[in-house]
Amino acid sequence: MFTRIDVIGSGRVGAAVAGRLRERGLDLGSADAEVVLLCVPDRAIPDVAASIPPGPWVAHVSGATPLAALAPHERRFGVHPLQTFTRGRGPEQLDGAWAAVTADDEEGRDAGFWLAETLGLRPFGLAEESRTLYHAGAVFVSNYLVTLHRAAALLFESAGAPPEALEPLMRRTIENHFELTGPVSRGDWATVDAHRAAIHAERPELDDLYETLAGATLELAT
Amino acid sequence: MFTRIDVIGSGRVGAAVAGRLRERGLDLGSADAEVVLLCVPDRAIPDVAASIPPGPWVAHVSGATPLAALAPHERRFGVHPLQTFTRGRGPEQLDGAWAAVTADDEEGRDAGFWLAETLGLRPFGLAEESRTLYHAGAVFVSNYLVTLHRAAALLFESAGAPPEALEPLMRRTIENHFELTGPVSRGDWATVDAHRAAIHAERPELDDLYETLAGATLELAT
Repeated sequence: MFTRIDVIGSGRVGAAVAGRLRERGLDLGSADAEVVLLCVPDRAIPDVAASIPPGPWVAHVSGATPLAALAPHERRFGVHPLQTFTRGRGPEQLDGAWAAVTADDEEGRDAGFWLAETLGLRPFGLAEESRTLYHAGAVFVSNYLVTLHRAAALLFESAGAPPEALEPLMRRTIENHFELTGPVSRGDWATVDAHRAAIHAERPELDDLYETLAGATLELAT
Repeated sequence: MFTRIDVIGSGRVGAAVAGRLRERGLDLGSADAEVVLLCVPDRAIPDVAASIPPGPWVAHVSGATPLAALAPHERRFGVHPLQTFTRGRGPEQLDGAWAAVTADDEEGRDAGFWLAETLGLRPFGLAEESRTLYHAGAVFVSNYLVTLHRAAALLFESAGAPPEALEPLMRRTIENHFELTGPVSRGDWATVDAHRAAIHAERPELDDLYETLAGATLELAT
């Protein structure tokens, strides 16, 4: 569909994206790019977009940023790789991940799907007005997963247990399709009360987090 | 160390444990077992333990239950496989998991480590008084991980995005050693505020959960 793409930005995502496009044989240095792909911080998107002469497709890879930030360009779309990226790994980080494609029309959607597939991502369409809910969902399972792990590691540290023992349990919980086990699933409120008391005595900074999660588990997961 | 073990209970854990011990060539049906291992519901442990004639080691596989529940037996220990189990899978569920071993003395600890290693688990010692904190930590990363996933799946459903797209993101967050990315790590409070507003409008049942996790992320993970 396209052969000349200009990738602006070489942070975590930009480096992986540019590397993958090079692997696919695309021309990345051309002055007459057909697509200019912004891999810059969200807050920089409006200024960088405004500095690009009209003509090519202009796109971003942000989960949180509306397409309107790409003004004044009208041929525009968004491809958000639903993945967390780290420095020191390459384009293989894109493998197996999905991507949310937002666009104003069919042509933009086709361009976004093409780019996602060329990157090795599995695209799905996302309505612009659903972007924030979608992004909040991603934050729950990625950022807040980190928070659960930190909380558990603090409790393990207080208990003298090795935090690395938590990882096989987390991986298996995912593999087992999020089947709920444990005290809340059994209605074992004595154990829940014992947790509350032990956390309050040793790690009171986790009181609210434990309480809110126990309540949400009962409400959402049983 | 032992050759004759009696496993009582054939639920999720008991079935996997008995299967593994059989694979290891242990004698499971003997009337003069050296170890009686209770794989029964937590609340049944005291009654089942009390019904066993004194003599053999008596042990349980519960994370939440104190050794005192094994009374009147004095040769006793606990081996808690730090894993979530499902029906329809076998002893391979034990592979790669850790196990918390609790005991009153060195002899009990040796017996517990031997059993854990025989099961294919990686044992670590856990003090009896630290059991509840340890178990609460396990609940955070297993049961409450399910809750995060349910919350995210609800938001994806409202956004028209495929919930299965969440899994590669969760797996990579673990692989990347829980490196925090996303709005809280960047101090991007405009995005956090936008999430709050969108959740409140579409899924107000998640208001408290989002708010508590955002606060805990700032406090624990940044």
